[in-house]
Amino acid sequence: MKLATFEIPTSAGPLRRIGAAMDGRLIDLAAAYAAHLDRADPGCDAQRLAGLLFPPDMALFLGSGILGRHAAHEAIEAAAVTGEAFGARTSYAAHEVRLLAPLARPRVMRDFLTFEGHMKQASRALGRGDQIPALWYEVPAYYKGDPDTVVGPDAIVPVPQYCEKFDFELELGMVIGRRGKNIPKSEAEGYIAGYTIWNDFSARDQQTREGPLGMGPSKAKDFDAGNAVGPYLVTSDEIDVRQLRMIARVNGEVWTDATSAGRQFSFADLIAHVSQAETIYPGELWGSGTVTGGSGLELGRWLHPGDVVELEIEGIGTLRNRVGP
Amino acid sequence: MKLATFEIPTSAGPLRRIGAAMDGRLIDLAAAYAAHLDRADPGCDAQRLAGLLFPPDMALFLGSGILGRHAAHEAIEAAAVTGEAFGARTSYAAHEVRLLAPLARPRVMRDFLTFEGHMKQASRALGRGDQIPALWYEVPAYYKGDPDTVVGPDAIVPVPQYCEKFDFELELGMVIGRRGKNIPKSEAEGYIAGYTIWNDFSARDQQTREGPLGMGPSKAKDFDAGNAVGPYLVTSDEIDVRQLRMIARVNGEVWTDATSAGRQFSFADLIAHVSQAETIYPGELWGSGTVTGGSGLELGRWLHPGDVVELEIEGIGTLRNRVGP
Repeated sequence: MKLATFEIPTSAGPLRRIGAAMDGRLIDLAAAYAAHLDRADPGCDAQRLAGLLFPPDMALFLGSGILGRHAAHEAIEAAAVTGEAFGARTSYAAHEVRLLAPLARPRVMRDFLTFEGHMKQASRALGRGDQIPALWYEVPAYYKGDPDTVVGPDAIVPVPQYCEKFDFELELGMVIGRRGKNIPKSEAEGYIAGYTIWNDFSARDQQTREGPLGMGPSKAKDFDAGNAVGPYLVTSDEIDVRQLRMIARVNGEVWTDATSAGRQFSFADLIAHVSQAETIYPGELWGSGTVTGGSGLELGRWLHPGDVVELEIEGIGTLRNRVGP
Repeated sequence: MKLATFEIPTSAGPLRRIGAAMDGRLIDLAAAYAAHLDRADPGCDAQRLAGLLFPPDMALFLGSGILGRHAAHEAIEAAAVTGEAFGARTSYAAHEVRLLAPLARPRVMRDFLTFEGHMKQASRALGRGDQIPALWYEVPAYYKGDPDTVVGPDAIVPVPQYCEKFDFELELGMVIGRRGKNIPKSEAEGYIAGYTIWNDFSARDQQTREGPLGMGPSKAKDFDAGNAVGPYLVTSDEIDVRQLRMIARVNGEVWTDATSAGRQFSFADLIAHVSQAETIYPGELWGSGTVTGGSGLELGRWLHPGDVVELEIEGIGTLRNRVGP
């Protein structure tokens, strides 16, 4: 399933919905599930129940587990045969809606560094040579992002006024789908809801200033619209992320053509590590870290207002954003 | 006003409420405001309106601004003369309720390093001498905490299984009360809702392993119950935080007797810095960083299961937690 969060325009302002992408259309899961219930159990409170199971918040939907997934499949089947129920449309053409990030506000964002090639090339670009810390091979460290800075496909991403070296990062994003703690690696895959694309925009000059202070990136990553996510959340039953092609284009020019293969830590490794002594929750977004070559830093090139950045990951789609002034 | 979040036991499970501490009692703001409305405008939907203005989520209440503050004062006045309304009690003795963190789940948590003395002593303790990075005097860097790890007064804080050097940190916590962006320092005070105590428990051995990786602390800070906050959120009109006594006791023994004075960056400095290009929101919790001497690291002492840690800040109260196995 390709899950999405989208807005439909109404005269009372935009209305947020969660949906599934199918054959170029977006199914409104709440409306379609109401259509299903009305047919399967005429006279029940179909609209109210559909609203409870498909609230306009993907993290809540993911937390409903098997019950929610089962209902989503029923909704998709209903949308194939019913265009409207209770005055609501069950699907939209892509151009009729505005896609948001599939998780409009992730519950927690953790961003790792799992590609050795990126570590080495970034280190070289920063004049530190090829040597990366030996601990990197053992400890999957991460920093946490600010969920209030998340935007979706086609959002404009302004360059912060304090930044002259503005950059993108091409990352594979993983979304947690079940609550758990002290999860063994052998069971970790069961906690993954699915995958998306994460463009972690970065103020590199600020990152250099913050680096020596030991707190990780602060304002290097925290600014409005600094994290673009999307276009879809592809559920883990539909994609194998061990070897996906990952491409970055700036103004149509290919800057990166890489693969998700060769990560030092798999997402199962990361789940086993993070969940030690700590409960993880549905709706968390975790990043693979920048794929090898997946940043301007590694190429000595920066982004400027007006640039269009397209990140494509095989099986997920293309996430396009424009750099704003 | 001393704001609090608390739970009352009911046969249908604990019920969360927001309140104000007054004369040793806790006023239930929703119940007391319903009592006020019922007297001021008999026949209006007093309970429904009170529930809307005082939801069991402090961050939402703070976001209601002047309207909410005005209503809180009316509620407190009503509680002084009315013990019960609509079958609900308007106040409780402290022992009848369980205090949670005043912000049960902060919207975003940012933790800074503003005390030069702590920087120097921690550096010395880690064998790096007195030299701290020159950039520390210019750049107020921070890492972000995990809101899902927050607990309140008297919560048990288990030592993560991967930690042998378990530590506390005595910090002054500040809570954002208004949404804003690009806030000039001269206006920054107006964005502060108030202050609390933040005990940022830390796995020091893990912090040493993560330090060289440049991401800031990860599992060194992220584990269940790792952030104790409370007991109250004292509104900024009632406290001046420029020079407060800050004390840490472990099992009754004073480990730290320090002052909030002498910070390299004031909270106004931090707001001006962070809000550059980034919207800040009501319900964010920001930490001063460890006060000078406010950690076991600086003393070469660690916490062990059974230890009771009490952090006291003048004008706010005492935050007590027990280290668990």
